[in-house]
Formats: sequence, C-alpha cells, structure tokens
Amino acid sequence: MSESGGIATTPEPPYYAVIFTTLRTEGDDGYGETATRMVELARQQPGFLGVESARDGLGITVSYWDSLDAIAAWKQNTEHLTAQQRGRDQWYADYMLRVCKVERVYGKRKKEG
Amino acid sequence: MSESGGIATTPEPPYYAVIFTTLRTEGDDGYGETATRMVELARQQPGFLGVESARDGLGITVSYWDSLDAIAAWKQNTEHLTAQQRGRDQWYADYMLRVCKVERVYGKRKKEG
Repeated sequence: MSESGGIATTPEPPYYAVIFTTLRTEGDDGYGETATRMVELARQQPGFLGVESARDGLGITVSYWDSLDAIAAWKQNTEHLTAQQRGRDQWYADYMLRVCKVERVYGKRKKEG
Repeated sequence: MSESGGIATTPEPPYYAVIFTTLRTEGDDGYGETATRMVELARQQPGFLGVESARDGLGITVSYWDSLDAIAAWKQNTEHLTAQQRGRDQWYADYMLRVCKVERVYGKRKKEG
C-alpha cells in the first residue's frame, strides 16, 4: 500500500488518525489487490485527509480524517465491511486499530508530496 | 527499528501516540545505530508504553505514552535532542511528527507479543 508514496499533507490540527497495525498470515489470498482497492476507496470518502503506509514484517497504515463521523462512515462502507471481514478471518494473524485525535504537529518538508 | 517485533501491547485508552513518519536521505551515516539506541532509550523513559515501527521507502514509527508530560520529557532527553538534531540536519529528507490522543481501540490478538 505504498502507492501513497510518502508523507501525507494534512491540515492544521485538530483532526483524526486511525493507526492500523497488522501482522499478516502467510500467502497473498487476494490481500494485495484488496489493500490497493481500499486505499483507492478511502480516498473517495468524505472527510478523508490522507494516508501513510509501510510494511516491514509489521505493517502500519495511518489514515487521516476530518472527524470521528467520517471514520465511522468509512468503517460502515459496504465494500470496506467485506474487506474487514476477510482481514479478520484470513489476512491478519494479529491487528490493532487505534482511533486518535491529532493534537500537535511538528515537521520538516523539503519536498512537496 | 523492527526489533520491537510486533504490535505493541497497550493499556485501555485514553493514552497518547506519537506518529513519526519519515523519508530518509541516502546512506546510513550512523542512522541505524542511533535509531536502535533511541528505541532502547525510549523504553527506559517514564510513561513509555510501547513502540511499533516499519520502513518500506516511507518509515513509520509509532510510540505510545501515558501522558503528554511523558512525551515532553522524552523530547527534552539530552541524548535524544542530539539525535533529533542529526535527524533534521542529516538523516531525514522529510519528516512529520504528530502527537495524538488515542481514544478508541479495536483489535484481534491471536498471539501475545
């Protein structure tokens, strides 16, 4: 899911972050295709602000949203619900999803993403 | 920085997360050694709850803390200040650090880490 390609450009806080940390099971089983599709679909949701993703054994995907309502609506998206079910049943050995309010930001941006 | 080896075991929210997203410059220049040392040092700080890290082009390290005061104290740690300066000057092309309050958690843990 690195097609986001970099650091998300987000507005001034406060806004919300969903930190999704995962350990995969063996094999792909359609995971890669669905993961790409979910990022594409998330980008189309109201209130979506950006996404950052890395996998290195552990996978970490952080998505940014303008409100808790936007996160709740994305969680209930029909296609996303199907993916969540496959994630729980098939793709993830372990996962943890943390919903957070971003309060302060510090950064250095040499390049605009 | 994957020596943490997995998903952090954290208490019931609320607690705090620091999402540190980075794009590295070319070359190591002491980065790997310092990154390992900083995780080791963070683990010794009061209020440290856990850390998760992955790099895949983009690097994402999320550290968890029991209070904003614990994060502020870690930020002011002398050895950490030196590392922060080298990070800004030398190791990171871009970075963004977001301080967040973790409000809700959902997870599936097959294995205890």
